[in-house]
Amino acid sequence: MTDFLKALEDIAGARAITCDASDMEPWLTDWRGRYHGSAQALVSPPDTQTLARIVKLAAEHRVPIVPQGGNSGMVGGATPDGSGNAILLSMRRMDAIRGFDVQDRQIVAEAGVILQNLHGVAEEKGLRFPLTLGGKGSATVGGLISTNAGGTQVLRHGTMRALVHGVEAVLPDGSIYDGLSALKKDNRGYDLKHLLIGAEGTLGIVTAASLKLVKSLIDRSVVWTGLESTAKARELLLFLQGRAGNAMEGFEILPQHCLDNVLTHIPGTRAPLASAAPWHALIELVRDDASSPDPAQTAEILMGEAMERGLISDAVISASEAQAEAFWKIRDSIAEAERAAGPAMQHDISVPPAKMGAFIDHVAPLMETKFVGTRAIAFGHMGDGNIHFHVMAPPGSDAASWNETQGKQISAMMHDLVVKWDGSISAEHGIGQMKRGELARLSSPARINSLIAIKAAMDPYGIMNPGKLIPLASAPHTT
Amino acid sequence: MTDFLKALEDIAGARAITCDASDMEPWLTDWRGRYHGSAQALVSPPDTQTLARIVKLAAEHRVPIVPQGGNSGMVGGATPDGSGNAILLSMRRMDAIRGFDVQDRQIVAEAGVILQNLHGVAEEKGLRFPLTLGGKGSATVGGLISTNAGGTQVLRHGTMRALVHGVEAVLPDGSIYDGLSALKKDNRGYDLKHLLIGAEGTLGIVTAASLKLVKSLIDRSVVWTGLESTAKARELLLFLQGRAGNAMEGFEILPQHCLDNVLTHIPGTRAPLASAAPWHALIELVRDDASSPDPAQTAEILMGEAMERGLISDAVISASEAQAEAFWKIRDSIAEAERAAGPAMQHDISVPPAKMGAFIDHVAPLMETKFVGTRAIAFGHMGDGNIHFHVMAPPGSDAASWNETQGKQISAMMHDLVVKWDGSISAEHGIGQMKRGELARLSSPARINSLIAIKAAMDPYGIMNPGKLIPLASAPHTT
Repeated sequence: MTDFLKALEDIAGARAITCDASDMEPWLTDWRGRYHGSAQALVSPPDTQTLARIVKLAAEHRVPIVPQGGNSGMVGGATPDGSGNAILLSMRRMDAIRGFDVQDRQIVAEAGVILQNLHGVAEEKGLRFPLTLGGKGSATVGGLISTNAGGTQVLRHGTMRALVHGVEAVLPDGSIYDGLSALKKDNRGYDLKHLLIGAEGTLGIVTAASLKLVKSLIDRSVVWTGLESTAKARELLLFLQGRAGNAMEGFEILPQHCLDNVLTHIPGTRAPLASAAPWHALIELVRDDASSPDPAQTAEILMGEAMERGLISDAVISASEAQAEAFWKIRDSIAEAERAAGPAMQHDISVPPAKMGAFIDHVAPLMETKFVGTRAIAFGHMGDGNIHFHVMAPPGSDAASWNETQGKQISAMMHDLVVKWDGSISAEHGIGQMKRGELARLSSPARINSLIAIKAAMDPYGIMNPGKLIPLASAPHTT
Repeated sequence: MTDFLKALEDIAGARAITCDASDMEPWLTDWRGRYHGSAQALVSPPDTQTLARIVKLAAEHRVPIVPQGGNSGMVGGATPDGSGNAILLSMRRMDAIRGFDVQDRQIVAEAGVILQNLHGVAEEKGLRFPLTLGGKGSATVGGLISTNAGGTQVLRHGTMRALVHGVEAVLPDGSIYDGLSALKKDNRGYDLKHLLIGAEGTLGIVTAASLKLVKSLIDRSVVWTGLESTAKARELLLFLQGRAGNAMEGFEILPQHCLDNVLTHIPGTRAPLASAAPWHALIELVRDDASSPDPAQTAEILMGEAMERGLISDAVISASEAQAEAFWKIRDSIAEAERAAGPAMQHDISVPPAKMGAFIDHVAPLMETKFVGTRAIAFGHMGDGNIHFHVMAPPGSDAASWNETQGKQISAMMHDLVVKWDGSISAEHGIGQMKRGELARLSSPARINSLIAIKAAMDPYGIMNPGKLIPLASAPHTT
């Protein structure tokens, strides 16, 4: 055992550390199986004070730290490199709810609290944490903050950033930043909370957060519509925003091909509408106040009007909660259905919302023409301009070799186009290891130099989640 | 003329520069007359490209730059030091509206656009920029962003930070950060927009911004109520938040003494209620959607209920827009009335909203006991926890000497108490020159070291608004 590991054990206690390969193994590969790393130890501190001492020790020894929540990220942001120098820092043991203020609709949760549990705790008090996503059974508060998670409710409630009132974090020198106090106005210089949100653990480790809650829903109505084009989808979105306002919580679009894929590969799914349509929209209308209009009635009225205006070709309104769930299941199964269909390059990108339809219409045929045999499919969050743009390999392609050859060319071209359209190469998944090179390639000098300068200033030894996000972080040294 | 000034003139053109003392003089003192500085030139660039070249030149020559918008800040943040080394950078010429998207309710405004003009431009299209404050006739977009301005509508719409979709800025090396594209989801690393907001021009110069607009108001109802205590005010706020939700746009409280002061010193004002009350609340209910309830009716119903519940002792609902304006005039005249009444130490502070009443009740008598003869008055934005806590000098005190002696002790004690209550020593005015020392004294090492490190990383020569915000910025050198 090295001096470092002995000192680590003194701080954290023997039970909080393991160097056993089989104990560590499940956490050294990302859940998609795309990144694999190694670590000298896995440590699971019980509280912020202990974590602060661990970070201080690691800083003294120049040992890299890779923080990890539910290990359900999409870009390899929680997987160490292969050197074995790093310690893997599991935040899962820090899962206390430190406080709950029903009047001010706020909860203080530690970083290791799992999203689904957070939902449950809020619901018990008649409140709701209005962010959800597929990985809710494993994703943790710390990970959601560090990746500024999105999801399907961003249209109304914003990304994670909009739901974090304050954070507590351990900085790279082991000092504790206590910003949990939820001040609505605080102009004491640079906003460290916003700097830590979305920093992917490269500037420090978020240990707890004060989170915003909203009223529980009374009821909801989920609508499935058929649409002629992305332009009609945009018109429908604007029409509903004008008329339903805050009652609209989600607006997702997908092409017929996506739906077909789900129906083929996911058991128990069925087409919501009687006939096919070039595009489909999934819309959720909600009510959290008894004095607001019944969302089912609102849906009835607005879909009737939308039909008269020629915005939609067909629509069905969920008649039960089970049907509402069934509609959402289709949307949530797109990625799984696609994996069943064969290899694909997936792109989590965004453009200004007004341009989203035009971007899809322009880029999909361009890809299919340039890369013969591929199929380009775009679906996503219309209200946010967030497109999940997948390009499927020609039938019969070998996944590994296609990914590395044509797949790479496809992604480079997709990202070039995104930049041309004033968009972002990472809408909600982050940069991690996966897009680190593309970020460096496609960022303006003003942006990338600023990121590098901030990283170097906050983490001079480069120990915080090295190799993620920042392209030129100097390699850390271990003793 | 120095080489630097000649080169500056080559870049900006002779008409954009003046070194004339009388031309510069109005801009070298802050509007409250508390800070005075000097500059080697006043330069007013016409566009971002020119400004970028100016900053690059200044960086090469290590000449400090002090950016200035409307020169209506409260903390000396736009006033240079006395050395005469700096150039004063007026942003007022860059006042174009670059774009307006009615559908997406967004406007792209240059930094020099005056708030009142922005209001006007939005109104012409049936939209509204939902932030306003006393200095709207001079405050500029760039200044509002750089100070993360607040005001009386934060309760519903948030501070400036919540209204900025994207920014364009010139960074300290003269590079242009183009973040104007208004993406709703963008996870490309550290959020430079949020870093620049509230940075007081110490990390770069905001040149333009994409700003959020909201629907115009259809009507509003302004209510003046009498209250027994701050605790009742808090109860009333929660009651109205539960029942009126988003319809409530403002909730201001003031003690009877504030009202008396206004009635004494401000011509044309009259008491809204027939009798005195320990506390008063000014509440604005609005409607921006014809299908929402009429705010006057809502006010009628809710005030009736509030009376029955014993939350308020009396209430009057504005019967006309003129009366609504008259109520707001009282609130907006508090500071002016107080200046007429004599010297006072003013504190723009915040605490967690739930603690605001308790803080006022605790601190006001403490101050008056400790500093005999003073009068401690707190008023402000109840929903935001933002208190304007003023401590008036004993009658007959000499302003200058009192400010420097007892006044300083009072502020130190106030700030110590704020820190103890998990609050902020600057809620909405910023740090500037005025609170720089207090920020350094009262920040945790984690916070202040981070601010210093970020400043040094982004502005290695220390040329961007030196002496503001950051306590230990090294003094810049001029050639």
